[in-house]
Amino acid sequence: MRITVWNEYVHERHNPAVAEIYPDGIHGAVASLLAGGVTDAKVQTATLEDPEHGLTADVLDNTDVLFWWGHLAHHKVADEVVERVHQRVMQGMGLVVMHSAHLSKIFCRLMGTTCNLRWREADDRELVWTVSPGHPIAAGVAQPIELATHEMYGEYFDIPAPDELVFISSYSGGEVFRSGCCFFRGKGRVFYFSPGHETYPVFADPDIRQVLCNAARWVYQPQTSSIVIDTSPESPTGWFQTD
Amino acid sequence: MRITVWNEYVHERHNPAVAEIYPDGIHGAVASLLAGGVTDAKVQTATLEDPEHGLTADVLDNTDVLFWWGHLAHHKVADEVVERVHQRVMQGMGLVVMHSAHLSKIFCRLMGTTCNLRWREADDRELVWTVSPGHPIAAGVAQPIELATHEMYGEYFDIPAPDELVFISSYSGGEVFRSGCCFFRGKGRVFYFSPGHETYPVFADPDIRQVLCNAARWVYQPQTSSIVIDTSPESPTGWFQTD
Amino acid sequence: MRITVWNEYVHERHNPAVAEIYPDGIHGAVASLLAGGVTDAKVQTATLEDPEHGLTADVLDNTDVLFWWGHLAHHKVADEVVERVHQRVMQGMGLVVMHSAHLSKIFCRLMGTTCNLRWREADDRELVWTVSPGHPIAAGVAQPIELATHEMYGEYFDIPAPDELVFISSYSGGEVFRSGCCFFRGKGRVFYFSPGHETYPVFADPDIRQVLCNAARWVYQPQTSSIVIDTSPESPTGWFQTD
Amino acid sequence: MRITVWNEYVHERHNPAVAEIYPDGIHGAVASLLAGGVTDAKVQTATLEDPEHGLTADVLDNTDVLFWWGHLAHHKVADEVVERVHQRVMQGMGLVVMHSAHLSKIFCRLMGTTCNLRWREADDRELVWTVSPGHPIAAGVAQPIELATHEMYGEYFDIPAPDELVFISSYSGGEVFRSGCCFFRGKGRVFYFSPGHETYPVFADPDIRQVLCNAARWVYQPQTSSIVIDTSPESPTGWFQTD
Repeated sequence: MRITVWNEYVHERHNPAVAEIYPDGIHGAVASLLAGGVTDAKVQTATLEDPEHGLTADVLDNTDVLFWWGHLAHHKVADEVVERVHQRVMQGMGLVVMHSAHLSKIFCRLMGTTCNLRWREADDRELVWTVSPGHPIAAGVAQPIELATHEMYGEYFDIPAPDELVFISSYSGGEVFRSGCCFFRGKGRVFYFSPGHETYPVFADPDIRQVLCNAARWVYQPQTSSIVIDTSPESPTGWFQTD
Repeated sequence: MRITVWNEYVHERHNPAVAEIYPDGIHGAVASLLAGGVTDAKVQTATLEDPEHGLTADVLDNTDVLFWWGHLAHHKVADEVVERVHQRVMQGMGLVVMHSAHLSKIFCRLMGTTCNLRWREADDRELVWTVSPGHPIAAGVAQPIELATHEMYGEYFDIPAPDELVFISSYSGGEVFRSGCCFFRGKGRVFYFSPGHETYPVFADPDIRQVLCNAARWVYQPQTSSIVIDTSPESPTGWFQTD
Repeated sequence: MRITVWNEYVHERHNPAVAEIYPDGIHGAVASLLAGGVTDAKVQTATLEDPEHGLTADVLDNTDVLFWWGHLAHHKVADEVVERVHQRVMQGMGLVVMHSAHLSKIFCRLMGTTCNLRWREADDRELVWTVSPGHPIAAGVAQPIELATHEMYGEYFDIPAPDELVFISSYSGGEVFRSGCCFFRGKGRVFYFSPGHETYPVFADPDIRQVLCNAARWVYQPQTSSIVIDTSPESPTGWFQTD
Repeated sequence: MRITVWNEYVHERHNPAVAEIYPDGIHGAVASLLAGGVTDAKVQTATLEDPEHGLTADVLDNTDVLFWWGHLAHHKVADEVVERVHQRVMQGMGLVVMHSAHLSKIFCRLMGTTCNLRWREADDRELVWTVSPGHPIAAGVAQPIELATHEMYGEYFDIPAPDELVFISSYSGGEVFRSGCCFFRGKGRVFYFSPGHETYPVFADPDIRQVLCNAARWVYQPQTSSIVIDTSPESPTGWFQTD
């Protein structure tokens, strides 16, 4: 499994508080936890400032699973790179969308909705409840996962109904949020997971790490069907015609 | 629209505290709010102690929408009455399942799962959040609905993934619950709604009343398809045979 | 109910065979059948050549349900009009997407996938089977609907799994197609229906007319929730804070 | 992975034509193909005539995945065995339901609907189309799978909407059928697959064999969540109470 972790890498370079939590960037922290937990994976990183944001055709040719973190710079991601990533998802690449990337161009492009939500940065305690106990992404995590402090993300979250809903969070403020959502799009699998704010060390939490490793395995599809979805082909007359 | 409100009617006859809140029984309170809010409906009631639990073939022939409340006496409901109700749902009757009826025979029969959940009676505050703002059942209610005190029902709630998830509740204890769930079964529509505990006056809450009236309208299907689902018919040879 | 029927109106002006079947344009035929079948509706039409394609903010302000037919000129629809229509769907406007509009900008925008399919123009017989007999869109139609000749649209159809699948078609060539698909997006409802090719008089078929009238009623939502989805609002601290 | 293949084993003992196609029984043929294709699996069989139908608590303790074939003798399966199997599915055991087992007690119990369909034995050609090209169960099979002759199973098939719809079949008679359906129930996964009639050698078809091997892997869940669903536990007061 070849994983690429993409991060806009802006907060960490401008906000010392974030840099202290994530000295190697959020991408570094996520890549490290994946390398530790998905032992058969090769993990690389890419960021906004890299040429073509580090997501050249060549890099994507060597990517089975793409993790995506963004917040301040969604608008700086080039449309052609978004289309390239979108095309790979259609062809079967897995995509894990983290936290504030709910407003990234690629996630909005895949969802077709506004992806808006309500939010608050006020040290809410977040509890992440499993509502699909048989789901591989929930394997081995506590019921609930408890995050002592995190940003609140609340409903209404404007997404299509998830194909599989794995987690629902509550916050000390009383809000709820569909925090772990699976989508099938084209031949690809997409998982959105909301924990992962830049000012809280949530990627150090063992359960969160477990979820992200599980997610990498779940979105990964080693065997892709031979069905081609890039075009609308004309079918020959009489192909299966019952004569 | 012809509505029948069914209630086991046990708590109210044995617990003075419940009788005080519901002097006409829970069925009386629900029937009254429906008669007030669904102005084109004819509303009748039925209870466990009635012959055939008040759900004779004749009563069901005159029922478009059935509301169901039960808790202590699920096991006293005769299997043949359950099958009769099940058959009507298959044929297009609407069913609204309230609160502790999550363990009623008819709901378990329709779901195919255990329908277990976690619970606590401790005066939790419940917030009922809309997660489908375009859904008719959520029309005209506050975001969120706030119940000052209610029994906690928490995940994991062992149901099939709802065909449409309308509400998710949080509790002051931190739990979450899929509290408003739509299911299509056979030609019928089923709505499960968790607010409605016997020791809290939740049926007096204007938003809860609105939800139940909306639910009556949503499960009601005036035009039923002519497709018959009671049998597995043999199809004639050559019916649409292309030759 | 205020319905607007949009049509690119190209085939009818350039192909005499199509003009003969649809002398008032496909929009005229669809508007006429809706006016006849949805008796409480006000129906207007709009086409590509109208200023802003006939879909000004003012027109959309007066549109509860939009029907869309397009084929040759998808790329000529201005992106800003597409965004305007998209925004209205998010806010609760109903949308019925017909036949070759599966590749329209607005449908692709809402789906997030390629929306490709396989096809063949060879006078296949199409049978449209109801797979949701309790669904309002299937009310009153034959099982199956039989179209003596129609264009074949076949799987794999690259859409997200429909929130409700109402119809599946077969063709004399042996292909199958999810031909009637419901989607919830934002606060709006979307229905895709594949029958409606320009060289076959399918809009004259009584069952097809019934489906389109049913669809208008189903995507129409007279009561919209007050939840606003145009922004990601910050929630006040302590709003429901339990303390 | 420990697989048990259950078969009522009636046709093969009474109908020489079936015995010729399946000299070792349908269970023998299915067990053999699974042993060949799922190389890490231990495969055993069980039949109706065995004590407790061969599905003792001990056998089920050693079963990760259960295949089920039945037709004539659904009513002879003891209710207590059905409940035992149901309980194991709730706890995470995988279940693959084949062909005429759509009317088996265990499948009906899990679905909550009638599971009726229309049918015809008339040597229809069946084409099995993939509608989820990214799904593991569809990996490596032709688009479509072509069965020269098979029993027709047609819509309306009275099941809840599948959580994932993988295959849709067409028949030379023009019917369609949701022939490959995934369901999540409790902590278990269920896959229904319609090809597999006793008088056609469909289990010899390489694509059908591939689908069944894929299905075994898909319903198998090596890591089960620790969430217990056998009871409705009371939660302690103040567990996560925000005080």
